[in-house]
Amino acid sequence: MTKVLSGMRPTGKLHIGHYFGALQNWVSLQDKYECFYFIADWHALTTGYETPPDFHTLRREMLLDWLTAGLDPKKSTLFIQSKNSAHAELYLLLNMITPIGWLERCPTYKEMKEELNDKDLSNIGFLSYPVLQTADIIIYDAKYVPVGKDQVPHLEISREIVRRFNYLYNADVFVEPEALLTKTPKLLGTDGRKMSKSYDNAILLSEDLKSVEKKIKQMKTDTNRKRKSDPGNPFICPVFGYHEVFSTKEEQEWVINGCKNAEIGCIDCKKVLIKHLFEFLEPLQEKRNKLDKEIDNIYEYLSESQEYAEKIASIKLEEAKKAMNL
Amino acid sequence: MTKVLSGMRPTGKLHIGHYFGALQNWVSLQDKYECFYFIADWHALTTGYETPPDFHTLRREMLLDWLTAGLDPKKSTLFIQSKNSAHAELYLLLNMITPIGWLERCPTYKEMKEELNDKDLSNIGFLSYPVLQTADIIIYDAKYVPVGKDQVPHLEISREIVRRFNYLYNADVFVEPEALLTKTPKLLGTDGRKMSKSYDNAILLSEDLKSVEKKIKQMKTDTNRKRKSDPGNPFICPVFGYHEVFSTKEEQEWVINGCKNAEIGCIDCKKVLIKHLFEFLEPLQEKRNKLDKEIDNIYEYLSESQEYAEKIASIKLEEAKKAMNL
Ligand code: SF4
Ligand code: SF4
Repeated sequence: MTKVLSGMRPTGKLHIGHYFGALQNWVSLQDKYECFYFIADWHALTTGYETPPDFHTLRREMLLDWLTAGLDPKKSTLFIQSKNSAHAELYLLLNMITPIGWLERCPTYKEMKEELNDKDLSNIGFLSYPVLQTADIIIYDAKYVPVGKDQVPHLEISREIVRRFNYLYNADVFVEPEALLTKTPKLLGTDGRKMSKSYDNAILLSEDLKSVEKKIKQMKTDTNRKRKSDPGNPFICPVFGYHEVFSTKEEQEWVINGCKNAEIGCIDCKKVLIKHLFEFLEPLQEKRNKLDKEIDNIYEYLSESQEYAEKIASIKLEEAKKAMNL
Repeated sequence: MTKVLSGMRPTGKLHIGHYFGALQNWVSLQDKYECFYFIADWHALTTGYETPPDFHTLRREMLLDWLTAGLDPKKSTLFIQSKNSAHAELYLLLNMITPIGWLERCPTYKEMKEELNDKDLSNIGFLSYPVLQTADIIIYDAKYVPVGKDQVPHLEISREIVRRFNYLYNADVFVEPEALLTKTPKLLGTDGRKMSKSYDNAILLSEDLKSVEKKIKQMKTDTNRKRKSDPGNPFICPVFGYHEVFSTKEEQEWVINGCKNAEIGCIDCKKVLIKHLFEFLEPLQEKRNKLDKEIDNIYEYLSESQEYAEKIASIKLEEAKKAMNL
């Protein structure tokens, strides 16, 4: 069965942006492919090495959200990267054949360094992060990697490393992974910026409903619409972006017309949205609370998945070592 | 007990330069310290990734020479680096905190790149080689590392990485290793250059005695001494360097006087050396042949040592992971 792999850094509780941007897609892939989804805690250290967070809590909270969204360890292999040392060993081997220039030229390398310029990212771990990512992918023969557009250059490096390995050692050990680009809706944060917990503009999947209501009520709208009598432009309003995800076609029409013609107020508009958000979040939160009580130790809970991942990875690692005469 | 660690790349059969430059010292350290000696096959890939040699044979041949020289798995922990994945995992973790600049500035980095300019050494594996070396050392709390002078800068990086780790994570996980500089005699190759198998100027510990005799007879002497009647200078003659290792004080006096005053010929001088080389090599080779027959599978032979190394390493790795909240 064709394999799919993706990972997420353990950031703890996920928000609705994660849900619609990635998780929903991951869940739908479960029935079409053999899926491997992992908690990329080593990757979190490439940028967060100076003050490592409490990974135990963050991994658990994220896993609860994964399961809540519908990821299922009976269908997919869910595992923790840092518990699978084969990734580290393959990373070491791939480092031997990866030119520094490939990594320095990676567009996201410079971008991220600039974006996170409050952090010292001049370390080998950050530079060689695409090599670790490559090891993560190819150690499972993953053919498809559901990634965002910004991750495509990384995947190109992975493909180059695979070609170089197979060529150098005249072997057919690794499969070239391909990006699985899926159009997903982009939900902005309540302040109109990118949704991120660090901006405090996110709506968490596990967010208290009262807090959701408050956040939506305070949410940024089309700033040109100061009064109800001012016509607005829903297509530049982050609230309407939410309607596109949560509301019916009819409701969306009602918003577009009502907003453009100054027939509805933002409060009316948001009320409909709040109702839908409640409908969406309530059952998820019930499920999450149940899982939270059921799952005490995530390592135990994932042990079968984890062992399976380790088994598959170690077989491929042995093949790679053999190709290098080790 | 204070720990000592050192490693050697698996180059196969060792020569007398290895014996007097390192092995003899390693053997003597066995009774004073808890020693870890490892076959550094991953390190061999940092420069030799393009055409990996048959490591199985090279590891076995080198191990036979180690044992022949007196290394004893009952006294020391002898193990194979690439069979101990904890080193790779610690390498990954240390990469997270190691500035690229530290590695680029390492004097041996540029030197080696120039020295091996026929090879493409622009890879991450080669650049980050001192990080792997650091992992090798500190994962055993090794206090002393018997190294040559040229390796001291690498060890300085190891000490900096240890300080940075212990500081960043406010922990006392790793010990700063120190160089154990021991004056060892430097035996030149039979052509007067550095002894190296790749120059075909080496005398192997397992070299056929007829071949030893032939090589010494053809060995380069003081080139100013064309005839027996020309006085020579033993202190610029590589043959005399061997006398300093193998011959008695009296014989050395005899060579010095006889050579300077043109009283002995180079053939006489070399005859004495050949006799001593035979006396030195014969018992070693008997021992080696016996070991060669006894030891079929080096992995089995070393299994106890290997397991002990893995156990010690994995305890330290867990400490490191805990310090990083993993
Ligand atoms: S009516 Fe709705 S879409 Fe229009 S500006 Fe207000 S919140 Fe935005
Ligand atoms: S006599 Fe001995 S020391 Fe002098 S030049 Fe000849 S070989 Fe060298």
